[in-house]
Parts: sequence; C-alpha cells; structure tokens
Amino acid sequence: MRLAPSDVLASRHGRIEKALAQEDVDALVVTNPFNIRYLTNHVGTAGTLIVTRDGLHLLIDFRYQEAVSSLQSSPAACPTLRVRPVPASYDEALIDALIDLRLSVVGIEAGHLTVARHEWLTRALASRGSTIVLRSTERIVEQRRAIKDAFEVSILRDAAQRLEAVADQAFATVRAGVRERDVAVAIESALREAGYERPAFDTIVASGPHAALPHHRAAARLLAPGDLVVLDFGGILDGYCCDLTRMAAVGTPSPEARRLYDAVREAQQAAINTVRPGVAASSVDAAAREILIGHGLGEAFGHGTGHGLGLEVHEEPRVGRPRSETQQARLEPGMVFTIEPGAYLAGFGGVRIEDDVLVTETGSEVLTSVPRDLRICG
Amino acid sequence: MRLAPSDVLASRHGRIEKALAQEDVDALVVTNPFNIRYLTNHVGTAGTLIVTRDGLHLLIDFRYQEAVSSLQSSPAACPTLRVRPVPASYDEALIDALIDLRLSVVGIEAGHLTVARHEWLTRALASRGSTIVLRSTERIVEQRRAIKDAFEVSILRDAAQRLEAVADQAFATVRAGVRERDVAVAIESALREAGYERPAFDTIVASGPHAALPHHRAAARLLAPGDLVVLDFGGILDGYCCDLTRMAAVGTPSPEARRLYDAVREAQQAAINTVRPGVAASSVDAAAREILIGHGLGEAFGHGTGHGLGLEVHEEPRVGRPRSETQQARLEPGMVFTIEPGAYLAGFGGVRIEDDVLVTETGSEVLTSVPRDLRICG
Repeated sequence: MRLAPSDVLASRHGRIEKALAQEDVDALVVTNPFNIRYLTNHVGTAGTLIVTRDGLHLLIDFRYQEAVSSLQSSPAACPTLRVRPVPASYDEALIDALIDLRLSVVGIEAGHLTVARHEWLTRALASRGSTIVLRSTERIVEQRRAIKDAFEVSILRDAAQRLEAVADQAFATVRAGVRERDVAVAIESALREAGYERPAFDTIVASGPHAALPHHRAAARLLAPGDLVVLDFGGILDGYCCDLTRMAAVGTPSPEARRLYDAVREAQQAAINTVRPGVAASSVDAAAREILIGHGLGEAFGHGTGHGLGLEVHEEPRVGRPRSETQQARLEPGMVFTIEPGAYLAGFGGVRIEDDVLVTETGSEVLTSVPRDLRICG
Repeated sequence: MRLAPSDVLASRHGRIEKALAQEDVDALVVTNPFNIRYLTNHVGTAGTLIVTRDGLHLLIDFRYQEAVSSLQSSPAACPTLRVRPVPASYDEALIDALIDLRLSVVGIEAGHLTVARHEWLTRALASRGSTIVLRSTERIVEQRRAIKDAFEVSILRDAAQRLEAVADQAFATVRAGVRERDVAVAIESALREAGYERPAFDTIVASGPHAALPHHRAAARLLAPGDLVVLDFGGILDGYCCDLTRMAAVGTPSPEARRLYDAVREAQQAAINTVRPGVAASSVDAAAREILIGHGLGEAFGHGTGHGLGLEVHEEPRVGRPRSETQQARLEPGMVFTIEPGAYLAGFGGVRIEDDVLVTETGSEVLTSVPRDLRICG
C-alpha cells in the first residue's frame, strides 16, 4: 500500500489552513472518512479529525490506536498530528476536545455531518456553557481533493492501466449461454489478480435488453447471439478508484446496434477533445450531448457525462449539464474524471463507453488504455 | 434475488404509518437508501421516498424508471406506490412534491440527512412561500427494521448457514508461508461460489501480531508457525448480511494462545446464554465482559459485544455497554445480531469469536453453524 509521504501531507495541510483563514474559522471538524484519510493517511470506519491553524488532532477509539502508532513511526507519518483517544462516544470526545483547544468558531462539514449529530453537538456545547459557534462549511477538503497531486496521479495512472488485464479476461468470458453473473465473477477475480484491493463499485454486466438499464448490475440472464453487452467495472488500488466501461457484442451485432455504438463513440471522442484547463466542466457534457442529439439520441442519454475519480468513485468535479444554482466548475490541471456518455433504448438495449481522463497543463491524458472498439466475442 | 412480497411490504407500511401518527407528522421523507429498499423493494444509489398516511411517493431519476416499472408489474410490487420522475435535482423535485401533496408537518431522517441538504430544503421552502415545517425524527424506520419479519429471518438463516462452505475454504488455505491476502482472496471467491452477491464488508485476515489490531484487514504478511489467525468475513445474500469470525492456529498454538482463545470462547458462550426477549442488550455485553475481566482481560476487550444485522452490516440493536444518555434497548423476538467478544494483546496477538443470533419467543437461535473450535491448520 503506497501512502502519501509526510511532505505531501504537509502541503495538503497548508492548503486547508489557507482555506480556514478564508472561511474565517479557527478550525474545521472533519467527519468525512475520505477527507480524514487524505489529510492523515489514517484509514478507518471511525475517526474525527480537528484541523486547527497550528496542527491536527485525530480522535480515534481503541481499535485504531495500534495502527495509528505504527503509521506515525513510518515515512508516511502525518506531520503535527496529535492523537486523542476516544474512550466511549466520539461526539462527547469531540466536545471535550473543542473546549480544551479553546476554539471559538469551528467549521463543520455540512455536506457530511447529519442533522442529528449537529443537533446533539449544539445542545451539548450549550449544556457545557460553551460559547463555541459551529459554522456550516461545504466542500473545503473535497475541492482540494479534486486537484490531484503528483503522488495521486501516479497511483491513478497505474490503477487505470492495470484494467487492461481485467478487460482481456472480461472479453474472454463473453459468449452465448454464459450468465451475466459469471462474467462479473470473472471480472472481479481478474481485479484481484491485477492487484486491486477490491472492486470500486458493483460490477455491471448488462446484456441485451438489460443494457437499456443504466444501473443494472449482473443477473442470471444468459447472454444470447446478437446481444450488446455493457461491461462497467473498476478497482481500488492503494485507495484510489478507476472506472471503465467497454462494449462487447455476442457474435455479429445488428446494423442498429452498430449505429448506436458508433454514435456513442463519436460523442465520447468529442467530449474528450474538449478537455483542457479553463473549460467549464459542463462544456465537456455539452460536447457529448450535442452529438447524441444530432443522431436523434438526446432523449436516450439521460445521465451526466462523467464524475471525478479519486479516493471516492464519485467525487468532484461533476461533469454534467450546468446547474443554474451552482457556480460552474472550470477544469484545472490535476483533475481526474470519467467521460462516459451512453444511449439507452428500452426493450432494445444500450451502449456506454467510459474512460478516465486527467487534465494536464495543455490538454488531457486518457489514463485508461483498453482499445475502445466494439469487441466481437463468442 | 428474493424480494419481499407485496403483503409483507404492506405490513411494513402499516407500522410506519402508525409511527407517523405517534410522531405527529403528516409524512416522512426517507433518504436512507436501506430504508427505501425496506419499504419499496427499490434498490438504487439514488431515490427519495415520501411516506404519507395514505400512500408512498418515490422520486427517482431516469436511470431507475425501467427497473421500477418492471418491479411494479411483479409479485413484489410495492402497494400504493406512485412514481415521480426527477428531471434534474432530487431536492428540487422533493420541494415540488411536498408542496403538491399539501403537507404541513414533514418528518426528516435526522440521522441520515446532512446539514447542507437540510439548510437547502429549508431555504427553498421559504423562497417558495411555503409554510411546510420540517421536523427532525430519528430511527423511525431503523427501529422497525431491527425486528425482522419471517421473510427476512428465512434469508438471514440461509445467509448464515452458507458460511460453512466459506469457512471450509478459509481453513483449507491457512498454512505457514501463505500471505494474509491470499487467504482473503480464497474467502471472497468462496463467498461468490456460495451464492452471495458480494462480501458484506472488507474481509479480515489478521495473523500473529496483526491479530491484536481489531480492524486490520489483510496484508502481505506471511503466516508463520504458531500464529493465531483471526478470520472475519461475511456475505450479502438477497440484500441481507451475515458476519462470522473464526480462529485458526498455524500449527500447534502456544499455551498462552490457547488460554486467550479459551477465555474468549467462554465469554462468548456466556453472552449467548443471556439472550432472550426482555433482556437489556447491554446485559449481553456485560455477560461477556465479566468473564473477560475475571480472566484479567478487561482492558484487552475494547469494543462492544455485537451489532444488529440486516440490510446493513451494522444496524440496530447495538450490543454494548449502556450509554447513560440513551434509553436501553431491550431484546425482542425477531432481532438478529452478532455476538463477538475479543481480546487483543499488543505485540502478541488476539482472539475474536463471532456468531449471528436470532432472538426467538423463548430464547435464541444461533444462525451460524460453523464449529467454534480453534482450528489447527497447515
């Protein structure tokens, strides 16, 4: 497992400390576990992190003490980290820590903290006679996570490239009479062999009419001659996600199937061609959408064009139609996201093609390397 | 995939409608996807459900329309369900629906809804001139989910029993020189073969000193003669989770290892013996804890004794030390939870033994059937 070296963590901390000053809070309480991992290298299902302007305080229970101690004596030690053991309740320990640290205005992650926890913390501070103010903040860490550092890019590139062996295994399994689920098992076993910790999401094998269901997983349906098969899979390598969709045909595809495939491929290429720093994320979506509308498939493309990839399989930036109420994200070097337009025709089937793309200083680098052709199998 | 038949869903709805009356709300907005699945059979990463006193309204986007239509024409159709398509934003569609349905006081799931979404909804209602009040509720659906119906018990029993084949495979792989990770791969492949959709959580294979880390997963460490090995795994079958921990020894265990194992086994049996309706969940924990304290291992047992199992791998009831601030849960027939005391000695190793238990009318039924012995392998 590659872990971010201490200097990489320190530079991430520097960016968050700047954000604290901008948001005018003394500290940020980080409850999103992916954000905690990004800032500390600590991986766990529990943990609360307080980032102050002069150091980090990690609240962890008994189960993680050993793991954090050994992390802190490694080259991936988290600078300035102090550990506060949690004897019973995380939220009680958090209140104690906020009071001990003599903080005044404390940001919370409003996009992660639940209403119930927020209500409890507010009541508990009041009952302790504390004047600490909890202030909602949004996406402070997530926005920084959207711009990958060199350490992350090298893992994401490796993760994307290892999908070649997995795709080979997937194509080798596709043939008439095989169940969708058998293909999914072959894919997941190949993911393990390729070194991924686990699948990044539930593997999708959607054949024939199932291919018209964008979020179908893998069922008992037997693949049949003429089927289009959507193969959508990815793995987690050293914590980072990759995500690929390729199309297979069971025997010779019909002319309609071929036309559908060609339209989606054209749309995907158009979207990839728009990627460079400064472009609005929604322009990438618009490029794919225009092509599909031109082919009379506007209605058949009901989802967004892509999503950021990193420690989470869906993160920033969102690559979709512009939302009037939010400011449009502009692409920046270091962003990594999927480009995955699709077209779905109920009863007939569907096509989706997906690659992972890095925004570079001058344009883009497609990280996934599996050929995009409609692969004739069986 | 077994799905709850329509009459089972109807009876779940009846219990929630009663709870709405008790909480004095016109409707409940359900955002927890496990709760949505429990009440509708709809499985998806997105979806918002409004349960009113005279029917259910499911908000879903394009991706799930086909799947829900086919569900609604099956024997697992959700009674009284009306579908509202979401063209763009779920929260905008929710505001429209709440206003259309002429609701006044609407419960939200405070334990699931984030502060950011709650703030957005509150502002959006105000900007539409609506007088709808959002009221925090907690655990309305989760409390009902803690009592399994006969449909759920039959799946949970099946899920637990299929672990026998998986445990056999795990024990067959344990021997000196094998990596922890290889054992995990064998377990996860056996889970698939046994019919589970996927692992219920990251498989744990913790050997030698790693066994002292209760949440260690599986690493490159090679198993060595004399190691104790914690094998903690489970699968999801038809949506329901099972969870088992067994102990292996690589060759003959040392007398200290054997003593540690015997103490934990005694503690686990004592906990199982306390289970019957009416007993406080914390008494199950206390039974295990007293035994370990008697063996001088009180400090070595830093986690709770168990957790509920169902659609989620951690759900109600919590089986741990009593929390002064919350009312103590009492066991009721139909509850299913793990009993998994452990003892962890830094540098030496650790032991955990875990079974899944159903509360019956008169006592308990242990659902998992793998023999509990310390298994000598290699």
